[in-house]
Amino acid sequence: MSTYNHIAGQRSGRVEALSDGVFSIAMTLLVFNLKVPAEGLVVTDVALWDALRQIVPDLLAFLLSFMTLGIFWIGHSTQFVFIQRTDRNLTWISVFFLMFITLLPFTTRILSSHITNRISIGLYWVNIASLGFLLWLHWVYANKRHLVQTDDANVQSAGKLIMRRIYTAQALYAMGAMLSLVNTWLSLLVIIGIQLNYALGLINFRRYAVQ
Amino acid sequence: MSTYNHIAGQRSGRVEALSDGVFSIAMTLLVFNLKVPAEGLVVTDVALWDALRQIVPDLLAFLLSFMTLGIFWIGHSTQFVFIQRTDRNLTWISVFFLMFITLLPFTTRILSSHITNRISIGLYWVNIASLGFLLWLHWVYANKRHLVQTDDANVQSAGKLIMRRIYTAQALYAMGAMLSLVNTWLSLLVIIGIQLNYALGLINFRRYAVQ
Amino acid sequence: MSTYNHIAGQRSGRVEALSDGVFSIAMTLLVFNLKVPAEGLVVTDVALWDALRQIVPDLLAFLLSFMTLGIFWIGHSTQFVFIQRTDRNLTWISVFFLMFITLLPFTTRILSSHITNRISIGLYWVNIASLGFLLWLHWVYANKRHLVQTDDANVQSAGKLIMRRIYTAQALYAMGAMLSLVNTWLSLLVIIGIQLNYALGLINFRRYAVQ
Amino acid sequence: MSTYNHIAGQRSGRVEALSDGVFSIAMTLLVFNLKVPAEGLVVTDVALWDALRQIVPDLLAFLLSFMTLGIFWIGHSTQFVFIQRTDRNLTWISVFFLMFITLLPFTTRILSSHITNRISIGLYWVNIASLGFLLWLHWVYANKRHLVQTDDANVQSAGKLIMRRIYTAQALYAMGAMLSLVNTWLSLLVIIGIQLNYALGLINFRRYAVQ
Repeated sequence: MSTYNHIAGQRSGRVEALSDGVFSIAMTLLVFNLKVPAEGLVVTDVALWDALRQIVPDLLAFLLSFMTLGIFWIGHSTQFVFIQRTDRNLTWISVFFLMFITLLPFTTRILSSHITNRISIGLYWVNIASLGFLLWLHWVYANKRHLVQTDDANVQSAGKLIMRRIYTAQALYAMGAMLSLVNTWLSLLVIIGIQLNYALGLINFRRYAVQ
Repeated sequence: MSTYNHIAGQRSGRVEALSDGVFSIAMTLLVFNLKVPAEGLVVTDVALWDALRQIVPDLLAFLLSFMTLGIFWIGHSTQFVFIQRTDRNLTWISVFFLMFITLLPFTTRILSSHITNRISIGLYWVNIASLGFLLWLHWVYANKRHLVQTDDANVQSAGKLIMRRIYTAQALYAMGAMLSLVNTWLSLLVIIGIQLNYALGLINFRRYAVQ
Repeated sequence: MSTYNHIAGQRSGRVEALSDGVFSIAMTLLVFNLKVPAEGLVVTDVALWDALRQIVPDLLAFLLSFMTLGIFWIGHSTQFVFIQRTDRNLTWISVFFLMFITLLPFTTRILSSHITNRISIGLYWVNIASLGFLLWLHWVYANKRHLVQTDDANVQSAGKLIMRRIYTAQALYAMGAMLSLVNTWLSLLVIIGIQLNYALGLINFRRYAVQ
Repeated sequence: MSTYNHIAGQRSGRVEALSDGVFSIAMTLLVFNLKVPAEGLVVTDVALWDALRQIVPDLLAFLLSFMTLGIFWIGHSTQFVFIQRTDRNLTWISVFFLMFITLLPFTTRILSSHITNRISIGLYWVNIASLGFLLWLHWVYANKRHLVQTDDANVQSAGKLIMRRIYTAQALYAMGAMLSLVNTWLSLLVIIGIQLNYALGLINFRRYAVQ
């Protein structure tokens, strides 16, 4: 009773390789949002400095999206520490997850070029929320179909942590996005703050941060 | 009687890595079809919303091509579950297969910018049909040269499923493309429907879908 | 007496991964040479067909460069079937080899936009010749420093084949490039012919082709 | 007492794959700094030659940045010869390191389009210095958290070499950047000289070069 779904996409290594590829390209393409000051018009050091100061909002959006990609890359790859094989459906969940990853440079460009529009932040949030939903679905499905290794003693507590991380982060993002009803810059800075909190477990502030 | 063909391209891992690279870049580049509304011209939320609504055909083409890439990536990587080594010829079939993958963002851009032209859909279909042909050739050649592992009990039934999947999908695509003689939008929507059917084995509709 | 050169770049897997990345991106970026007919200006099917016919030289250059990349990717990865580890110098030879790979989309764009200029073909040839030289250097150096596995019975005959392949191909390319003194189109077509000969070992003409 | 930080990012293979992806894309994107002479305006061989001579500063910046990427890629991957696993913090150090790698094509474009401005060289140096700092932090952190394998007899001397290499290189870069106060071209050429020194261990000058 074998079907195509049973033979397709069994090796998790390929999905991981495709993911690393998509993430690394999306990360590198973000830099295209940063406009280089025009050669002919900007000549003196002072003029160049002024021109560079004007791309500060773009740099902010760059930093924001790079951290978003870092957070979701870690979230996705952490699941594969415990997922020992995939089936075709799990592969497709990953493919759609990657689709929203490739959309991030697009929603970032809209955000940085229309930073005072609520719709920009709304779209950006929809992008992040979709990623969160698909990451959640990925873990739920993998568990339901017994694609997660069960001989690892840590897998149960790991699973709880993976889920809690998604819930907490998404709740914070939703709150941050809603702040755009008050002020778009405030909303943006709060979201950047949330990202920094996740990234800067790096520094020793870790223990005070929301885990 | 050793020749260059015998020593070149024996390890399937490299072909798989190159494929993952090309697929992930092609996937990520599709997003460049989505034009960001111009900064100066679009100011209010309403104007931005209107501008975004105008890229709906581009989003449709993006979704279509992303699914196409997903389908062919799964099709290509599934064969490598059973192919245990390559020779130079099999590697070249993969390279030409990847060439048509890199052409997909191009034919997609033609499609989304000339969506009412039959030639756009025709070209897009030629692209998909070439991919189908090379995928078929890849499997046939690998079997003929005994590059497929034969100690796997599933390989025979898997082979039949791989072939049937290519035949069915290509027949459906050809029918979809011919609909462009009647109406290009109808043709496009039918092709998107076929892709969704393959992708959304994901949801529980799976059993009603064409396998 | 350990130096940085002894510890850096020992694992060939990383060089191979970097190479697969660079090759797959260079392959995918070639498609940007193909200009999509402008949306507003080209409306009817006939006009679109005419517009597409005008990019035939670009398609030719695309095909040429894709095959060039395929040939050098196979040439580079074939060496790594026998190279068991790298040192820092061998890694740098690979890095410079990859530098000329990334230049290929650039020299291809010059070629396709100035197809009747001898300088375009000359530059393109310099690019290919540099790749050939570095590929040759890569193999010579790896052998000199005993980085090639010697317990493989085929390695000696493989080495001869690897070298002969480089010599023959480069001699043919040089002749093809010199034909540009007579006629640039002739030169281009001959080089494409040489590439096809290497790629289309794929078809059964293989035995008649220059090995 | 397990936390998300303990389960996230344990396998160093994924970080290495992401790094190879980002580096290979950054390397390939550098070529976009090289402008192809316009099709209509440049017709004769002489005019094409003149047009190509005008991109010599761009070629210089291309060469410079390609070597920079090569040097830091080797520096980063050398550490992973000895790092046997990662934790979430080490992964984030790598992610921020990769962020500055993706910025390099941007600072290179500023450099090549404003080559006589001190600010361009200053920015470029800030980019290189940040990479050096994060590379240093990466090794220090990995050692502090015992993520480096200790059963390798070479690891201690290797560690010293890794650190010394970073200190020496960064000191030389800082001196080179300061020369821009005198003359920007001098500064640029000195930095290129430093890079060549690191890359051309390749040639036999190695023993005379700063290790």
